[in-house]
Amino acid sequence: MASLSLPLQNHVFSATTPLIRSNPRPFAIPTKVRMSLQESGPSIAVAGVTGAVGQEFLSVLSDRDFPYRSIKMLASKRSAGRRLTFEDKDYVIEELSPESFEGVDIALFSAGGSISKEFGPIAVDRGTIVVDNSSAFRMDEQVPLVIPEVNPEAMENIKLGMGKGALIANPNCSTIICLMAATPLHRRAKVLRMVVSTYQAASGAGAAAMEELEQQTREVLDGRPPTCKIFKEQYAFNLFSHNASVLSNGYNEEEMKMVKETRKIWNYKDVRVTATCIRVPVMRAHAESVNLQFEKPLDEDTARDILKNAPGVVVIDDRASNHFPTPLEVSNKDAVAVGRIRRDLSQDGNQGLDIFVCGDQIRKGAALNAVQIAEMLL
Amino acid sequence: MASLSLPLQNHVFSATTPLIRSNPRPFAIPTKVRMSLQESGPSIAVAGVTGAVGQEFLSVLSDRDFPYRSIKMLASKRSAGRRLTFEDKDYVIEELSPESFEGVDIALFSAGGSISKEFGPIAVDRGTIVVDNSSAFRMDEQVPLVIPEVNPEAMENIKLGMGKGALIANPNCSTIICLMAATPLHRRAKVLRMVVSTYQAASGAGAAAMEELEQQTREVLDGRPPTCKIFKEQYAFNLFSHNASVLSNGYNEEEMKMVKETRKIWNYKDVRVTATCIRVPVMRAHAESVNLQFEKPLDEDTARDILKNAPGVVVIDDRASNHFPTPLEVSNKDAVAVGRIRRDLSQDGNQGLDIFVCGDQIRKGAALNAVQIAEMLL
Repeated sequence: MASLSLPLQNHVFSATTPLIRSNPRPFAIPTKVRMSLQESGPSIAVAGVTGAVGQEFLSVLSDRDFPYRSIKMLASKRSAGRRLTFEDKDYVIEELSPESFEGVDIALFSAGGSISKEFGPIAVDRGTIVVDNSSAFRMDEQVPLVIPEVNPEAMENIKLGMGKGALIANPNCSTIICLMAATPLHRRAKVLRMVVSTYQAASGAGAAAMEELEQQTREVLDGRPPTCKIFKEQYAFNLFSHNASVLSNGYNEEEMKMVKETRKIWNYKDVRVTATCIRVPVMRAHAESVNLQFEKPLDEDTARDILKNAPGVVVIDDRASNHFPTPLEVSNKDAVAVGRIRRDLSQDGNQGLDIFVCGDQIRKGAALNAVQIAEMLL
Repeated sequence: MASLSLPLQNHVFSATTPLIRSNPRPFAIPTKVRMSLQESGPSIAVAGVTGAVGQEFLSVLSDRDFPYRSIKMLASKRSAGRRLTFEDKDYVIEELSPESFEGVDIALFSAGGSISKEFGPIAVDRGTIVVDNSSAFRMDEQVPLVIPEVNPEAMENIKLGMGKGALIANPNCSTIICLMAATPLHRRAKVLRMVVSTYQAASGAGAAAMEELEQQTREVLDGRPPTCKIFKEQYAFNLFSHNASVLSNGYNEEEMKMVKETRKIWNYKDVRVTATCIRVPVMRAHAESVNLQFEKPLDEDTARDILKNAPGVVVIDDRASNHFPTPLEVSNKDAVAVGRIRRDLSQDGNQGLDIFVCGDQIRKGAALNAVQIAEMLL
């Protein structure tokens, strides 16, 4: 998990792969015999299986040989009845309903906040442990908000096989990616303040947003006006403040997620966080510029060593060849990449660092983190 | 200058305009009679006239009816002999040589640092006032580094018609765009510390980089590997740490320009600045996320009013409709746009603000600022 094992690709999309399906695995036939379908495994369900994150759930489950004795493919009425193949077996997508969760041990949800709010508690009532990728329950005090590498203890009271349902929330993608890098440093030197600026990919707004970016780019290159459906303004060759609603304090909801979720995940209500969240014309991986202020001094070499040894993190920090993390390099990868690790000149001594972080928004920012949470239940 | 007077375009490029020539004016015939060619005006020269900034020099000179009695079009040997039309008159591009500056009152340079280093002093010796867009002389203590709206006093001793040459440096584009917004706030509340993350366009690396971004984007959309000549890695649908060399302190040269130029322009050696400079797949306007810490309290409403009244600045800060500055909206515009103006939650009281700034890199970030400097000489 801590290595970027695939060869570094020099371009996002291969000629044989449609642009937005950069991960074609969910519907493909695996080439090795999977051990994951087994009687001793839990019964699982994927709610929102046709979405970008839903497809990635399947991909990650398969990649990690997640054990299961059965799997239900759930989606909206619109997709119900469609067929898909997963690990050599054919499935029919079922419409999400209260009955969907009968006998389901673990449900992975990524079907939007309103679906989670409606069906999450229903599933819990039926004894299902729900790992929810929406923001519906993240700030609920009764619901653990978990990054497995960061705060696994938050869910230690939730176990499979106790016949009791529960909710576990998956943090916002930008928070996960930021805290994967910041937490190991925080453990050593205690973060007092964090100033974050994000460079967020289309995928955070779903598969349709990725398609819109592709379509708009073709249109602009052809000299045609861009089609704006998901976003209200041109995205191709442009960037804009995150499309989440802006609150009365001037922060948008995405930024406030970073502020509040960090406090909850670190169990540290006084940590000072500010964020500016920007959407950039990149497909599926986020980047973040993170300025850190510490209580205790932390020099950049020590910080680099800490990050090199951090689970789920790779350091790409080659100053001589100007090689640092990029969204493309982490796309379809599990690890979060950190680079540009340097002493902040605007702070005294070694009280501050600047770092630059990239992580796959669909993978560690969503599906992988949720599946890791599910693995901790086994 | 303080208004975005053109209608807001919903796409960068019109069907009739090649992608990278988003400003076709330099070689076009103007539709009104220009008053700028006049005997009482200075003789001027443009060095590097075929580059992206060189072309924009001509465009800005024309737009602003800059008076001149003659204009020399200078470039490298490769372009010498080519013809161009400017304000209804035909010119032959001449090869830059020491003799080029005989009788030239003002020379606008944008031909790269080594050309400036070689020919800048030669021009000065011949009595020319050189406004240099390169980084060659910016940190030279004898050379004023000027943003006309910010520190016009730095060049008050330099006048035309005294028969004496001089050098005036144009700051780095990222510095100009940042300080256009930060200075009015600094004047009111004194900036103690500034944390900047940039979102920089292709144009900062020249017209060839803009072409490369366009070409790569077409290639990636066609499923072909991208051609990487200017940049060593894929730029289309990607972003990366600025391509400037990385220094031993871990900052790249672009970032250190922001740190050092701010100190010099503000004549304030203790100001604390850190920057992370990132290249994003946008054509010609930069964006910057700027976190400010003040000595005196400054609330967001006062800050907004100050910025609304600042020369060369427009405020685009509509929270209800999520309308904030974008690179596209400021492209080909003079003014720097500021939005996302909000109290920084991570600082006490009103001691800090977050803002988001966009400015046309070729225009206010380079050519316009240089022409404004030249105007102050008249």
